[in-house]
Amino acid sequence: MVNIEIDWPPETDLAVKEEMFAAELARGQELARAGQLRRLWRIPGRWANWSLYEVADATELHNALTSLPLWPWMTVQVHALADHPNDPRQLGITVERGQ
Amino acid sequence: MVNIEIDWPPETDLAVKEEMFAAELARGQELARAGQLRRLWRIPGRWANWSLYEVADATELHNALTSLPLWPWMTVQVHALADHPNDPRQLGITVERGQ
Amino acid sequence: MVNIEIDWPPETDLAVKEEMFAAELARGQELARAGQLRRLWRIPGRWANWSLYEVADATELHNALTSLPLWPWMTVQVHALADHPNDPRQLGITVERGQ
Amino acid sequence: MVNIEIDWPPETDLAVKEEMFAAELARGQELARAGQLRRLWRIPGRWANWSLYEVADATELHNALTSLPLWPWMTVQVHALADHPNDPRQLGITVERGQ
Amino acid sequence: MVNIEIDWPPETDLAVKEEMFAAELARGQELARAGQLRRLWRIPGRWANWSLYEVADATELHNALTSLPLWPWMTVQVHALADHPNDPRQLGITVERGQ
Amino acid sequence: MVNIEIDWPPETDLAVKEEMFAAELARGQELARAGQLRRLWRIPGRWANWSLYEVADATELHNALTSLPLWPWMTVQVHALADHPNDPRQLGITVERGQ
Amino acid sequence: MVNIEIDWPPETDLAVKEEMFAAELARGQELARAGQLRRLWRIPGRWANWSLYEVADATELHNALTSLPLWPWMTVQVHALADHPNDPRQLGITVERGQ
Amino acid sequence: MVNIEIDWPPETDLAVKEEMFAAELARGQELARAGQLRRLWRIPGRWANWSLYEVADATELHNALTSLPLWPWMTVQVHALADHPNDPRQLGITVERGQ
Amino acid sequence: MVNIEIDWPPETDLAVKEEMFAAELARGQELARAGQLRRLWRIPGRWANWSLYEVADATELHNALTSLPLWPWMTVQVHALADHPNDPRQLGITVERGQ
Amino acid sequence: MVNIEIDWPPETDLAVKEEMFAAELARGQELARAGQLRRLWRIPGRWANWSLYEVADATELHNALTSLPLWPWMTVQVHALADHPNDPRQLGITVERGQ
Repeated sequence: MVNIEIDWPPETDLAVKEEMFAAELARGQELARAGQLRRLWRIPGRWANWSLYEVADATELHNALTSLPLWPWMTVQVHALADHPNDPRQLGITVERGQ
Repeated sequence: MVNIEIDWPPETDLAVKEEMFAAELARGQELARAGQLRRLWRIPGRWANWSLYEVADATELHNALTSLPLWPWMTVQVHALADHPNDPRQLGITVERGQ
Repeated sequence: MVNIEIDWPPETDLAVKEEMFAAELARGQELARAGQLRRLWRIPGRWANWSLYEVADATELHNALTSLPLWPWMTVQVHALADHPNDPRQLGITVERGQ
Repeated sequence: MVNIEIDWPPETDLAVKEEMFAAELARGQELARAGQLRRLWRIPGRWANWSLYEVADATELHNALTSLPLWPWMTVQVHALADHPNDPRQLGITVERGQ
Repeated sequence: MVNIEIDWPPETDLAVKEEMFAAELARGQELARAGQLRRLWRIPGRWANWSLYEVADATELHNALTSLPLWPWMTVQVHALADHPNDPRQLGITVERGQ
Repeated sequence: MVNIEIDWPPETDLAVKEEMFAAELARGQELARAGQLRRLWRIPGRWANWSLYEVADATELHNALTSLPLWPWMTVQVHALADHPNDPRQLGITVERGQ
Repeated sequence: MVNIEIDWPPETDLAVKEEMFAAELARGQELARAGQLRRLWRIPGRWANWSLYEVADATELHNALTSLPLWPWMTVQVHALADHPNDPRQLGITVERGQ
Repeated sequence: MVNIEIDWPPETDLAVKEEMFAAELARGQELARAGQLRRLWRIPGRWANWSLYEVADATELHNALTSLPLWPWMTVQVHALADHPNDPRQLGITVERGQ
Repeated sequence: MVNIEIDWPPETDLAVKEEMFAAELARGQELARAGQLRRLWRIPGRWANWSLYEVADATELHNALTSLPLWPWMTVQVHALADHPNDPRQLGITVERGQ
Repeated sequence: MVNIEIDWPPETDLAVKEEMFAAELARGQELARAGQLRRLWRIPGRWANWSLYEVADATELHNALTSLPLWPWMTVQVHALADHPNDPRQLGITVERGQ
């Protein structure tokens, strides 16, 4: 589980920002297709997100995160996760919810 | 996303602890089957976990969490999540990883 | 704006807890009828709440809060609020929302 | 419940600041008329506020907050609120206070 | 300037508490008459206070504070104060306010 | 009770700083003569102070503080104070101390 | 890298403490012989330590830590480590130091 | 044990950064060959590391750390370590792990 | 430099406390005569102190601190100190102050 | 006891830095000869120090600290110290240590 806050100078030129964003999106999709980045959520009201990675070890995770174009502006907190015997997915419980 | 720390007195009688755990497991599975509790991970080295709930609003989440038998011993932090346009699941990217 | 966390011993006898809660509810309604307590929300997953008081000064607020039967178990944080010129209520904007 | 702190460079040109403020006020009123922004208070002594939003979920809240012109300069903390059975408004207690 | 929080077990016998309070009040008045304790305010909603002492040095302050009967239950934070050239009292400005 | 920290760029031109300080002193004296600013102390070693204001409510306090010329460089924390029944001034104890 | 603080009631019977310590020492040596626990240092002045584990993943680490007899009294913080290309051991630099 | 966070301006010219890195690597190897720097790990996702130094005292450590070319951009936290009687290396337990 | 906070149950029998204090005083004097404990100051208003130790390394310091009878009730923070070239004692400046 | 952290822009011209340091050293020696600054230690790995001042009150300390040329770049925390009856110097224990 990775928590990322982005500290981006508010005065930056809009074209620079858009180019950076397009590159970020592209790299994020590559990480997803490689099976490393699994889920991604926004933290409401902030330029920040929670993401769920599935990697072999901390070195692979470091390489994935630092490959993101916005990484120099990020503050990253990694939270290691261990399996929980009651995890619904481990128990095979995957009911669809009529939202 | 919910972070839970459990502060349980170390001297408690073992039988009491086991009975409580069985009830906790049973209630957790009910929440999973109701489609509210989606994922559950341990925080390594702690009696604590991260869990992912899918609920209509904060009131439904409060009712789910307080229905857990261990709730009186828990310290709970709720982190609201908003959709992220780059979430792999939203984008339909769900590659299986040969772990 | 008042933030309250309650730290209640998990092992307390259930009858004691219920009697205390009935008294708390009754006193809360008295404060509401006196026009001091305006709104009350739960913090999801915790035995804690946010409440909105309308009082003449900090002394009246202190007297209202310490009159609550559960006060000895509370940790209270008071956040003073000043009028904001853009407050929708001050501007007379009170659209009903079809929720 | 949303807590916002604004970190604005003190040396900014006054005209820029006034233009920004006019836009912020206009957008805030739109959110109020849409029934999303309900209340707004200043935190005394700071360029900061507490506000009360009524939205369907965290995604709608994120979109509302990021639509504010001052958002790039804001630090936002969202506090999710659950219904409380003793909320005076839920109980229908709405005494006017002779202030 | 001294900040004091009191952490008193909620279950204590009422007679014990009242006896302790009477002793605390008496000792506080002695410190006031000795010219050490100058002002005393409650922190609204908490069993806590801010107080203003006028003492020769930190050793005299320590002796004054630890002479209070409730001291074993207190958490004390001392904030040293230096003279400010713009202090209204130093400047001789002591307008009465028609409150 | 108000705690103020000032974060002023160390490289600023000395003339600018002196002009700002003269304006700050003048405005502070106006607040003192209006009976709002009562006491002012330096926090030793910092460009920071504690001050004691006497105002009708948080809105009046906000207006007083934001009228200070240095306000854009300040970080302000307001601590609301309630009357304490043992306050030496309330009890009429005002011994002069032969310092 | 694992940081452990132990919060042990000071009044515990000495015989209980010694028996617990002998069991802790024995289990620690088993983890060392299994190649999981690599190094162990005391934090001076505290009943706390830093330790270096070498494990396949967070689940193996959790199982190792919770197998320690003192675990119910521990507060554990796990810091994941990634390889650093300049690590002296990776570079094969292992000079002995004449201490 | 030394924790280092590096706060480097994201906009720096790439050539400057590479030259600085080469100098940092060279100096780090000198410290390793002098037997001062023993181990070095990355903190995943951050430009930060944990390192293990073996030095006679705090003065020697200060001189080693401040000799690094990137030191002016570092935030350094030193954690003193004392010998632990159960340290596997002290006990002579150095099993190789089939990773 | 060592910071010590003592968390002692307020209800303890007075005779127990006095016996403990006498033992603490005796052990402190032994550490002083051994040249390890150099200075000792109270933190005003708290049962806490700052002390200055002069020891060969962290292991010697740990042994000195844990030999104090009150150690099981202490929370200890060690701050390592390095020589400063401008230290008045290093420079041989030891003017007596007519206090 | 004074804790000082210095936050100095890493890109500053070296000549400016050296001139500032010479002035800082000179002023520090004046404070030492005046009997105000007693001891000075570096915090290993940081541009920071602990110092021991002996002054009549907080106002004299503030004047001493703000007279240092580097003061505008410092973050200063003052920790007031009270006499401790077990202080080795008060007890006249000043054994020389064969370090």
